[in-house]
Amino acid sequence: MFDSGLGGLTVARALRARLPAESIVYLGDTARVPYGTRSADTVVKYALGCAKVLIERGVKAIVVACNTVSAVALDVLRVELDLPVLGVIEPGARAAVAASMGNVIGVLGTTGTIASGAYPHAVAAVSTRVEVVGQAAPLLVPLVEEGWLEGEVPRLAVRRYLEPLLARGAEVVVLGCTHYPLLQAIIESEAAAIAGHPVRIVDSAHATAEAVADFLREREAAAEGPELGRLDLLVTDLPKSFADVARRFLGTSVPHVTQIDL
Amino acid sequence: MFDSGLGGLTVARALRARLPAESIVYLGDTARVPYGTRSADTVVKYALGCAKVLIERGVKAIVVACNTVSAVALDVLRVELDLPVLGVIEPGARAAVAASMGNVIGVLGTTGTIASGAYPHAVAAVSTRVEVVGQAAPLLVPLVEEGWLEGEVPRLAVRRYLEPLLARGAEVVVLGCTHYPLLQAIIESEAAAIAGHPVRIVDSAHATAEAVADFLREREAAAEGPELGRLDLLVTDLPKSFADVARRFLGTSVPHVTQIDL
Repeated sequence: MFDSGLGGLTVARALRARLPAESIVYLGDTARVPYGTRSADTVVKYALGCAKVLIERGVKAIVVACNTVSAVALDVLRVELDLPVLGVIEPGARAAVAASMGNVIGVLGTTGTIASGAYPHAVAAVSTRVEVVGQAAPLLVPLVEEGWLEGEVPRLAVRRYLEPLLARGAEVVVLGCTHYPLLQAIIESEAAAIAGHPVRIVDSAHATAEAVADFLREREAAAEGPELGRLDLLVTDLPKSFADVARRFLGTSVPHVTQIDL
Repeated sequence: MFDSGLGGLTVARALRARLPAESIVYLGDTARVPYGTRSADTVVKYALGCAKVLIERGVKAIVVACNTVSAVALDVLRVELDLPVLGVIEPGARAAVAASMGNVIGVLGTTGTIASGAYPHAVAAVSTRVEVVGQAAPLLVPLVEEGWLEGEVPRLAVRRYLEPLLARGAEVVVLGCTHYPLLQAIIESEAAAIAGHPVRIVDSAHATAEAVADFLREREAAAEGPELGRLDLLVTDLPKSFADVARRFLGTSVPHVTQIDL
């Protein structure tokens, strides 16, 4: 599993809850976070570098725990790599269609994810009836990385990004970036305040964990047994601050975080 | 001249106003911006890569138009490179001491700049009497890169970062990051509102342009003549959006922006 930084830990946590015996190697490319404001070519180059590290560690499948990479590089990764590659967008799109009333789905994401059109594309594969409206929200990743998860600044930033989505009739809001679940409480309350009624929020991390678990079980490739699987954490920069966040975030004792060069 | 992204254009603009005949090669490492949240080792590695590109272009001196790099990598660059390397911190520190009443200087900067202690160090070289208090403000670079230069979100973020500085008695606030001059109006008005009186804001971009002009003139190395010097803009990602910002920002016609790989 890899991500541009710490956001993918939301997927790691969900997958660990779903498949506790599975061993996970998590790579956070913290030296080059954020990916969401980069061009597609740059994201593809970075993603291939991350995948190579995981393959050298002997993984059986790769989960792209990052919406930006899933949006712009998944096809290239699937062509270039000789093992299954699972992204976060298809599961998120399916969950959004299931949660919607069949009219309009709103997606919050990075500039790269929204510009790629990956969510409209993935939703169209499931339902031809549902319209998708997207909103780039580039300030939310820095807010999460800075730890500003409460108060007026994230509230106003979230409101500014949600208003156009809800004005265009979104019935469901997809958190189209693995960082955003850390702002879920604010996103829920602001969406309800703007809309005047509760708005369903779809977290692609959970949908992805379900999809990965289904994929591995169908192929009888899922680890079984009573023992908790290993969790290896690799980062490209700042292992100490990553360990602090991971500890708070995974809610468990976190192993040593290893710094690697990319 | 190089910077992690577009912030260094504030230095380019000031230098161009001061030495119009000088030719400038500006490299913005937009593929890896922001530097301010990276470790010192990573910033040093990136800075050496940027400097190499400029040297291959035949420059006579390098201006590190980035506080983070100036804070953590200037000594390494000076040891490793065979040409003059000028940073933004020494000029900013001198200007701050001159503007202060000799008691307390406040510095806003990235996490990397503040953690380095470079401003207290540079101020101590000029005055042993002045105390320096620092505040990391990691959200301001994303706000500038996103173009949110007005309104409640930048106002509240700026206020949150200024309050601890002013509570500790800062008489002057140094904009210790080349992105921050784009938020100068908000920083000035919030500082005045918190303090109850106007607070001097020191822009290290202008101080640096003065220092570079003095340095070149003392060595009779400054370009002279009636013709405007060349301006070459290089970036590592997203040349189009960089050109848009540079055009608005430099207030002149901007040449073609070239994308290079690092």
